[in-house]
Amino acid sequence: MGTTTERTPKAAIKLIATGIALPPERVTSSTLDSRLGKSAGYVERRSGILHRYHATADASQAALAAEALHHALDSYHLDPSSVDLLICASAVAVQALPCSAIHILRAARLSSGVAGFDINSSCVSFISAFEVAAGLLNTGAYRRIAIVSADLASRGIDWQDEESSLIFGDGAACAIVERGDGRSGILATQVEMYPEGSELCEIRAGGTRRNPRAGIAEGDFLFHMQGKPLFRMASEKVEAFFTRLLNKSELALADIATVVPHQASHLSLAHMRKRLKVPESALIDIYRHYGNQVAASIPTALHEAFTTGRVMPGKPLMLIGTAAGLTLAGMVLLA
Amino acid sequence: MGTTTERTPKAAIKLIATGIALPPERVTSSTLDSRLGKSAGYVERRSGILHRYHATADASQAALAAEALHHALDSYHLDPSSVDLLICASAVAVQALPCSAIHILRAARLSSGVAGFDINSSCVSFISAFEVAAGLLNTGAYRRIAIVSADLASRGIDWQDEESSLIFGDGAACAIVERGDGRSGILATQVEMYPEGSELCEIRAGGTRRNPRAGIAEGDFLFHMQGKPLFRMASEKVEAFFTRLLNKSELALADIATVVPHQASHLSLAHMRKRLKVPESALIDIYRHYGNQVAASIPTALHEAFTTGRVMPGKPLMLIGTAAGLTLAGMVLLA
Repeated sequence: MGTTTERTPKAAIKLIATGIALPPERVTSSTLDSRLGKSAGYVERRSGILHRYHATADASQAALAAEALHHALDSYHLDPSSVDLLICASAVAVQALPCSAIHILRAARLSSGVAGFDINSSCVSFISAFEVAAGLLNTGAYRRIAIVSADLASRGIDWQDEESSLIFGDGAACAIVERGDGRSGILATQVEMYPEGSELCEIRAGGTRRNPRAGIAEGDFLFHMQGKPLFRMASEKVEAFFTRLLNKSELALADIATVVPHQASHLSLAHMRKRLKVPESALIDIYRHYGNQVAASIPTALHEAFTTGRVMPGKPLMLIGTAAGLTLAGMVLLA
Repeated sequence: MGTTTERTPKAAIKLIATGIALPPERVTSSTLDSRLGKSAGYVERRSGILHRYHATADASQAALAAEALHHALDSYHLDPSSVDLLICASAVAVQALPCSAIHILRAARLSSGVAGFDINSSCVSFISAFEVAAGLLNTGAYRRIAIVSADLASRGIDWQDEESSLIFGDGAACAIVERGDGRSGILATQVEMYPEGSELCEIRAGGTRRNPRAGIAEGDFLFHMQGKPLFRMASEKVEAFFTRLLNKSELALADIATVVPHQASHLSLAHMRKRLKVPESALIDIYRHYGNQVAASIPTALHEAFTTGRVMPGKPLMLIGTAAGLTLAGMVLLA
């Protein structure tokens, strides 16, 4: 394993700004105890969450995304017109057509005429978008790219399903990237799709598979999560995946200064600590205060790391997650 | 304007294979005349289409995509396991979660573990995916990428709306790309989003905006197209856009050997000929036999060009389209 000072990124990319947005309503686990008729402390114990945020039924996903985008722009004094590509990297879209980037551009009141598209690999969309952004910055196609992930998971919560209903929170997060001088960038990316797990976590409606013509039921709009088999499949695969990612980066776990995981569940974060042996000092864990924010989790955790000095110039940073699909994605960067 | 022999691509990419797939049912315009109670010849005159293909209500979008992928692999004797990234570039997804690439991988029975994600910029998704693929090939992240676009527009046709109901056809198409030796590649890409046109062509259901919690009506599952204002806005913008794209490529229209446009409508193709002055000899027009296949139109037309010797080594090739959003996208390549 090489030392970090020897490593040269394969694809230059530099994180220059981050921002987040949350719906106004903070839902505590004790509120859910009352709402669901549970004894005091039950929901917090079961979910590992103190509170999460839920949008009202009329709130706009695109408006929340736009708020995160402006938070990033404003906090780092960036001119909105300097963004020449807008990538939406959410798991669930605003609507079937047109793409969500359009709706975010409209809600953000940025100038018309900017380039954009959506990237989707469910909860790890942000990792795919980051890899794509690096490619486009290196061919010189764009100079400043805003990646925005926003998900309103609450709109699809099945309140009859205790396991999934307690963990989801809504939110949006933005990362703004440039090519930089080549010292920062991607050392390795690893993405693996295992479609044999496609029904372990899904929302069946929304496209051509379930609609009034193909046949649809009310429940098709809701998250269906087979928690135990999903966790079993993900945890079986993630250890070897983690090793492949580290090997590709030519680094050892001890070299990684900061690990930004998808905040999938209490169990998944415990698994990071115990089985993958990610030290507490490296792990970004915001789950207790946000829950699982679907595709917004990784960039929200990255914002937490970036704004608290845990994205350190020249130090290796890992993004990693297991997602609906089943998709595993990870990236090792020099920050 | 430089001559084409002087030009060096900014991002190397080489098209090595294409394939298409169509549902078995070919719907002639005369069949629609009878079905809709019109006089003989009415639908063909009104739409400019001889026939299009419509899938049955239980047909799978992912299976059609998988068929196009295998058509490309088989026709060019490529090992399916040599594809290391699968990009789905459709306009409408299979379902809200997980992404369509998962469903295509499953339907295609490719090996689990391959990388993938969806890219969406409505009807021009293929152009965005092609630009993204070039970036990823140039950073060395992947070596052989399959881009698959599949849309089942028939599932969202509003038969009460004559204008939109006559033009849509279903289909899937695949392009397989590699980096190549650097002689072929992208000279210029131009993508522009105009969200003030977001309601001119849309399917409102499918995501967080319209669902049982946010409120939903039966019609939200259907294409809503305001044909005249959409065409007016697109045709107002496309001329200056076309000039910007050509200027960026440092080529003149006369240098472009082949133009592969989105097959949006009879009018849009007439506009390409009359207003943009694309010569008949350069224009790929398959509209009469396929209709508007949404995101599958551009790669289906590219397949037509590729398999009939109209993608010529060293010659400039243009992909261009106006799409729901409103999004305009274009690319000039050296083939």
